[in-house]
Amino acid sequence: MAQERESHREDVVGRANVEDTPELLAYYDELARHKAGALWTVANKIEPWEPKSQSVPVVWRYRDLRAHVLRSVELVTPEKAGRRVVYLNNPGRSDVAAAVGWIYGGLQVMNPGEVASAHRHSASAIRFIIEGSGAYTVVDGHKMTLGANDFVLTPNDTWHEHGVEATGSPCIWQDGLDIPFVNAMEANFYEVHPDLSQAVGYAVDDMTKTWGNAGLKPMGENWTKGYSPMFKYEWAPTYDALTRYAGCTDGSPFDGVLMEYLNPVTNGPVMQTLGASMQMLRPGEHTKAHRHTGSGLYHVAKGSGHSIINGRRYDWQEHDIFCVPSWAWHEHANGSDREDACLFCLSDLPVMRALGLYREQAFGDNGGMQPLL
Amino acid sequence: MAQERESHREDVVGRANVEDTPELLAYYDELARHKAGALWTVANKIEPWEPKSQSVPVVWRYRDLRAHVLRSVELVTPEKAGRRVVYLNNPGRSDVAAAVGWIYGGLQVMNPGEVASAHRHSASAIRFIIEGSGAYTVVDGHKMTLGANDFVLTPNDTWHEHGVEATGSPCIWQDGLDIPFVNAMEANFYEVHPDLSQAVGYAVDDMTKTWGNAGLKPMGENWTKGYSPMFKYEWAPTYDALTRYAGCTDGSPFDGVLMEYLNPVTNGPVMQTLGASMQMLRPGEHTKAHRHTGSGLYHVAKGSGHSIINGRRYDWQEHDIFCVPSWAWHEHANGSDREDACLFCLSDLPVMRALGLYREQAFGDNGGMQPLL
Amino acid sequence: MAQERESHREDVVGRANVEDTPELLAYYDELARHKAGALWTVANKIEPWEPKSQSVPVVWRYRDLRAHVLRSVELVTPEKAGRRVVYLNNPGRSDVAAAVGWIYGGLQVMNPGEVASAHRHSASAIRFIIEGSGAYTVVDGHKMTLGANDFVLTPNDTWHEHGVEATGSPCIWQDGLDIPFVNAMEANFYEVHPDLSQAVGYAVDDMTKTWGNAGLKPMGENWTKGYSPMFKYEWAPTYDALTRYAGCTDGSPFDGVLMEYLNPVTNGPVMQTLGASMQMLRPGEHTKAHRHTGSGLYHVAKGSGHSIINGRRYDWQEHDIFCVPSWAWHEHANGSDREDACLFCLSDLPVMRALGLYREQAFGDNGGMQPLL
Amino acid sequence: MAQERESHREDVVGRANVEDTPELLAYYDELARHKAGALWTVANKIEPWEPKSQSVPVVWRYRDLRAHVLRSVELVTPEKAGRRVVYLNNPGRSDVAAAVGWIYGGLQVMNPGEVASAHRHSASAIRFIIEGSGAYTVVDGHKMTLGANDFVLTPNDTWHEHGVEATGSPCIWQDGLDIPFVNAMEANFYEVHPDLSQAVGYAVDDMTKTWGNAGLKPMGENWTKGYSPMFKYEWAPTYDALTRYAGCTDGSPFDGVLMEYLNPVTNGPVMQTLGASMQMLRPGEHTKAHRHTGSGLYHVAKGSGHSIINGRRYDWQEHDIFCVPSWAWHEHANGSDREDACLFCLSDLPVMRALGLYREQAFGDNGGMQPLL
Repeated sequence: MAQERESHREDVVGRANVEDTPELLAYYDELARHKAGALWTVANKIEPWEPKSQSVPVVWRYRDLRAHVLRSVELVTPEKAGRRVVYLNNPGRSDVAAAVGWIYGGLQVMNPGEVASAHRHSASAIRFIIEGSGAYTVVDGHKMTLGANDFVLTPNDTWHEHGVEATGSPCIWQDGLDIPFVNAMEANFYEVHPDLSQAVGYAVDDMTKTWGNAGLKPMGENWTKGYSPMFKYEWAPTYDALTRYAGCTDGSPFDGVLMEYLNPVTNGPVMQTLGASMQMLRPGEHTKAHRHTGSGLYHVAKGSGHSIINGRRYDWQEHDIFCVPSWAWHEHANGSDREDACLFCLSDLPVMRALGLYREQAFGDNGGMQPLL
Repeated sequence: MAQERESHREDVVGRANVEDTPELLAYYDELARHKAGALWTVANKIEPWEPKSQSVPVVWRYRDLRAHVLRSVELVTPEKAGRRVVYLNNPGRSDVAAAVGWIYGGLQVMNPGEVASAHRHSASAIRFIIEGSGAYTVVDGHKMTLGANDFVLTPNDTWHEHGVEATGSPCIWQDGLDIPFVNAMEANFYEVHPDLSQAVGYAVDDMTKTWGNAGLKPMGENWTKGYSPMFKYEWAPTYDALTRYAGCTDGSPFDGVLMEYLNPVTNGPVMQTLGASMQMLRPGEHTKAHRHTGSGLYHVAKGSGHSIINGRRYDWQEHDIFCVPSWAWHEHANGSDREDACLFCLSDLPVMRALGLYREQAFGDNGGMQPLL
Repeated sequence: MAQERESHREDVVGRANVEDTPELLAYYDELARHKAGALWTVANKIEPWEPKSQSVPVVWRYRDLRAHVLRSVELVTPEKAGRRVVYLNNPGRSDVAAAVGWIYGGLQVMNPGEVASAHRHSASAIRFIIEGSGAYTVVDGHKMTLGANDFVLTPNDTWHEHGVEATGSPCIWQDGLDIPFVNAMEANFYEVHPDLSQAVGYAVDDMTKTWGNAGLKPMGENWTKGYSPMFKYEWAPTYDALTRYAGCTDGSPFDGVLMEYLNPVTNGPVMQTLGASMQMLRPGEHTKAHRHTGSGLYHVAKGSGHSIINGRRYDWQEHDIFCVPSWAWHEHANGSDREDACLFCLSDLPVMRALGLYREQAFGDNGGMQPLL
Repeated sequence: MAQERESHREDVVGRANVEDTPELLAYYDELARHKAGALWTVANKIEPWEPKSQSVPVVWRYRDLRAHVLRSVELVTPEKAGRRVVYLNNPGRSDVAAAVGWIYGGLQVMNPGEVASAHRHSASAIRFIIEGSGAYTVVDGHKMTLGANDFVLTPNDTWHEHGVEATGSPCIWQDGLDIPFVNAMEANFYEVHPDLSQAVGYAVDDMTKTWGNAGLKPMGENWTKGYSPMFKYEWAPTYDALTRYAGCTDGSPFDGVLMEYLNPVTNGPVMQTLGASMQMLRPGEHTKAHRHTGSGLYHVAKGSGHSIINGRRYDWQEHDIFCVPSWAWHEHANGSDREDACLFCLSDLPVMRALGLYREQAFGDNGGMQPLL
C-alpha cells in the first residue's frame, strides 16, 4: 500500500509539510477504514497555488479535418451513427471527450434531404455553420434557416433536430456543447423524441424576427426560460455591428473589437453554461497578452493570423478551430494589414461569472507581449 | 364658512355618509385649528370608485399647428425665448401645462445654423423628428444626427442641446417631457451650462452604434445609469422590425403589432419615467377597445385612420398628435385597406408599472368595440 | 383676458425673457384656440431652478389631538363614518388632504369589540399602533396582532379590515397612505368587500413568522407580489436591531443609526410607493443638516427632542407626528443625554428612487448645522 | 490498441449502434492522429439516459471519528500540518478527495489558545461548530465568535483564520468546501497571508449584528460582493425560526420544515457555489422520497433517526454526517415521537440552480416511500 500514498509536502510556511512516520502511516490506515483521511497528506495537492489546466492548446486545421468529415458520409448512416460527427479530442481531456476544459466540440456533416432524429438532453449546444446551403434546425417547434457563420442555439432540454433541405448542398457545421460539464455535474438526461421528429409550429425564423431587434421589445411576448429566445444569431448583422462599433471604440488591448452574443431578455449570456462572442482584429492588429479563468474554443470566422498561447505560436486561417485553456496566457494577431480577421469564441465564461470564479491578469512584462518559447 | 365645507356623502354600505350637525360642524372647526380634519368629510372624494382623469381627449392637427410653429421663428429669437416651442395645452391640465396626464408635449422649430443653449434638468425628454434635414442633438458630449421619425433621448440630468446644421433645412420636432410629473414630485432642478454649449467628445452617433445591435453586447462597455445608453432610436430599423415581427405574430387585439422601445442594458423602458412604443395597424385593422391606467401621447408616424376614445371618434393623419387619458377606453382603426399605419406613443407606463399601479380592462360588450356616443 | 396671462420672465441667459407685444398677444390667443400655447410664456414657471415644496413643516402634538380622536367615538358611528379618523391636513396641501407631499396621514380610534368593514383600494397603507391592546388587522385572510409601535402593511389591492378584540382596550393608531399620490396618478380604485368582512384562513401572524427570520428563507414558499409578504413589523426586534447595530456603526451624520424596513423577498422597500424606517438618536446626539427630494412623515416612537427644518425649531415628544417637506433642510436632536430617542418615518423615497428622482445635499456651512431663523 | 477502443453500442432508435469494421478502425486511427475521434464511438457514454453519480451514500459516525480527530492533536503540529483535519473520503470520489460530488468535508480540531495561519483561496468554506467553547473565525478583519451548531462563512478570496480563545475548551467543527469543484473548474488560487495573521478591524460579530436583522436594512451600508455579508449564522435564532415556521406551515412532503440560509442582500444562497439549509423533522415525521440533481452533505444538528437512500437505510444520531449523491432517492425519518430532529445540509444546489441544471422527481410508487432493498 505504501507506494500508493500521496506525498505533496512543501517547505513553505502555511503549507502542509508532514513527514511519514510509522505511527502516522498506521493512523492513515485507521482513517481509511472509516472512509476518511488526513487532510495534510493531500492539502497541497487540492489547494494549488494557481490553476493548471489539464487541457493543452491545439489547432484543428479545417483543411485537414474536412476530408475526414466528408468521408463519414460514406462510412456510416445517420440511422446507425445517430449523427455523423468527428469530435475534437484534446489530448489532455480525452477521458471526458472534451475539446478544451469542459467543452465538447465536433464537426458534423449532413447531405441535402437528410434530417437527424429529434432528441433532447440537459446539455446545451451551439451549432455554428461552416459551409453549405439549406441547413436548418428545429428547436421546440421553431424552425431556423442557417447560412455560413450563423449559429443556432439548442438549449438544455429543448427538443431539437438538424436537417438540410433537399434543394441545398452538403452542409458542415461545428457543434459546441457543455456535455462534459453537465456530466461532471451529474445532471445529464437524454431523451429521444417519441415521434423521432417534431412538427414546425411557427413562422420560419420567428424567434429571431421577434426578439432580434435592437432596442425593441415585442409587446405581449413573455419569456422566462434561462436561455435566449433569439435562437438564431446571424453573421451579416454581427459583422455589421462589429464594423459600426469599431468606428467608435478603441477596443480592448487584449481582444480588439469584441462583442458578446447575449440573451435579449436578460442581457446575460445566450445560455447559462455556454457563452459566445465574435471579435474583430483590425488590419495589422496584434493584441496584448492576458489570461483568465475559463476555457475558450475559437473558430476563425474570417481572415487569417496567429495566436500565441503560453509562449507558443499557433497559426490559423479561415474555419480553423483552436482552443485556449483556462489561465493560459494568450494574444491574437491578424495576419493581414488590409483585411480584418474575425474570431468566434465559444466559452464557459458564463459559468465562471455566475459562480464568482472569474479572474483575469494582464501580462505585465515585455510590453505586454509574451516572449516566444 | 359653511358653504366651503366638503360634502361627499354616499348612501352605500362601507362609505362615509355622515350628515352635518351643529355639534359636528363645531368639531370640524376645532380640528381645523389643529391642522386636522375628519376623514369622513372627504373620504368618498379621495377614495373614488375608479380613476376619472382630469385630461380630455384632444387631436392636435399638424396642418393647423405647423404654420403657427413656423411663425414663431419670426416672432421671437431663440435668445429671448430660450426655445421656440408651441406647447400642447390640454384643456383639463392647463394648470400644469400638460398635453395629457403628467406629460408635457410641444412642437419646436429650428432654422439651419441655429443651436439652442445647453442646459440640464431633472425632467426627461424625448425629441421626435417630424420634418427637415440636418437636425442633431448633443447629450453629455455625444452627438446624434436625426431624421424624420427618429427620436433622441435627453434623460434626466444630462447636459443637452439641439441644433440644425447650416447645410440643413428648417426642422420641426415634437418634444415630450415629464416636466409636470417631476414638478409634482417636487424634484425638478434646472441648470444652464456654464459655457452655454458643450464639446462633442465622441464619434458621431456612437451610442447607437455601440448599444443598438440586436443580441450583441459591446465587451468592456459598462453602463449603470437609469436610462438607456442607446440615445437615438431610428425609424428605418424600427419599421423593419415591425414588418418582420408582423410576419410571425397575431399581434395584440388592442394594439395590432406593437413594440416597446427599450433600454438595452436593463430591457426596461428607455427612461425611468417615460416610455415609448411604435405600433403598426395592418391594412384594414380595427382593434378592440381596452382601457388602462397611465396616459399616452400619440404621434401618427405613418398613414391615417381614427381612434375611438371614450365613445367618440377622433380622425388622424400623418404627424397629427392625439392623447388618450388614463383609464379612457380606446381603440384604433387604420383608414387604409392597402397601407399600414404606424403610431408612436409616448407614455408614463414605466411609472405605472414600477409602482404597481398598472391596471388594464378589456371592453367586454358589443364584440369588444365601443358604441359611438 | 390680459390679466390672466402668465408672466415669468427672467433676465438670465438661457431663460425665457420675452416681453408682451400686441402681435404676440394676438399670437397667444390664436394658439389658445388650437389648445396650444407658447412655451416661453410658462417655461420659467415649469422649469424651476430647484424644487419648492407646497407643503409646510408641521408638528401635530399627540397631547392635543388625542382628545379629539377619542371624541370622534361619541360623535359618529363606524357604520356612518366608515372609519373614525382625524386626518392630518397640511396647510399647503389641503386640496389633496395630504399631511405632506403626496402622503396622507390620520389618527384612527377603535373600541374593543369593534371591527371595520373590509375593503380594498389601489392606495397602500401602513398602520402604526400608538396605544391600546387587542388591535389586529386582517390582510387577504392573514390576521396580525398588533402592539404599540408595531406596524402592519395593507398593500395596494389587498382586502383588509381592522379591529380590536373584545378583551382589549381602546386603540389609537396612525394611518399613513399614498392616497393623494395614487389619485394624482389617476390610478385609484376602491371596492367594498362583498361580505363586508373576510374569513381568516391562516395561522395568526403567519406571514411574519414565515418571512421575518433573518438570513433564512422558508423553503417552498413563493412570493412574487410587489410588496412585502412580512405584513407585520414589530417594535421589539426593531429596537433590538437598532441597539445591536448601534454597537458596531458610527451611524449617519444626518440620521444617527437608521434602518430601513424592507421587503424580505426583494430587499427593496416594504411597498413600491411607501417606505418606512426607524432611526435611533443616541443620547445627546444632534445630527447635521441635509436635504433631499421626497417627503417624510415622522412619528416619535420613543423619547423627546427637536428637529430643525428650514431654519426653524420644532420640538417633539413621544407620539408626536411631524413632517419634512421635499428638499427642506432638516436635522434632528435628541433632547436627552441619557436615553436614546427613536423616530419612525414614513416616506415616498421608494418612488423617488425607483424613478431616478432622488437627490441629496449636505448643508455645508456653519459646521453642517442650520442657523436658526 | 484495439482493446482500448470504446464500445457503447445501444440497439435503440436514435442512439449510436455502429459495429467495428476494419475500414472504420482504420478511420478511427486516422482521426486520432488529428486529435479527433468519431462521436458515435462515445456518444452513448457521454450522453447517458440519466445521471449516475460516482459518489456512494456514506454515514460518518461522530462517535467513531471523534477520537481520531482528537488524536491528530498529538500526532501533528498545526505548523507542520497547516490544519489538523480528518477529511471525509467518499469511496467513489477519493481521486478528488470529496465527501460527495464536488464537495469536500472534514473535521478539524483546535485547542484553546491555538490559531491557524491566515490564508485565502478561490474555494469557499462553511465551518459548522460541533463542540467546544471559545471558537472564533476572522474573515477579512471581521471576528465572529462561534458556539455549537453555529456556522461561519469564509467565502472565496477572503482572508481567514480560525482560532480558539485561551479561555475556551478544545473545539471540533466540520469544514465544508467546494475545493473539488473549483479545482475541476480550473479556477483555484491559494495564498498565505503575508503576516500569517490579520488584524481585527471591526466590532466583534459586527457583520451579523449589521445584516442579520429580519426585515431591516442598515442604512448607508453597501454590499456588492457575491456572498453574504452576514458571515455568521447562529443556531438559536435558526431553531427559533424553524419552530415558529412549523406553527404555520404544513411543510414539504420531502423535507419537513426546511429553511434555506440566505444572503440577506440578494436573497440568494449564502455563497455562489455552496448553499446551506436547516430542516426540522417533527416528532414521528417520516418524509416521502424524492430525488434531484445536486449533492448534499448532511450534519445531524439535533436528535436521531434514519434516512433511506437509494433503497438502503442509514441510521444517524446527533453530529453524525451523511451524504446524498446527485439524483439519489432519499427520504428522512425522525426516530423520536416526542422530540424534533434537525438536519443541517451543505449542498451545491446554488450551482445547479444558477446554471439551469436543477431537476427534481418525486417517488411515485409505494405511497411515495422507497421499498427497502
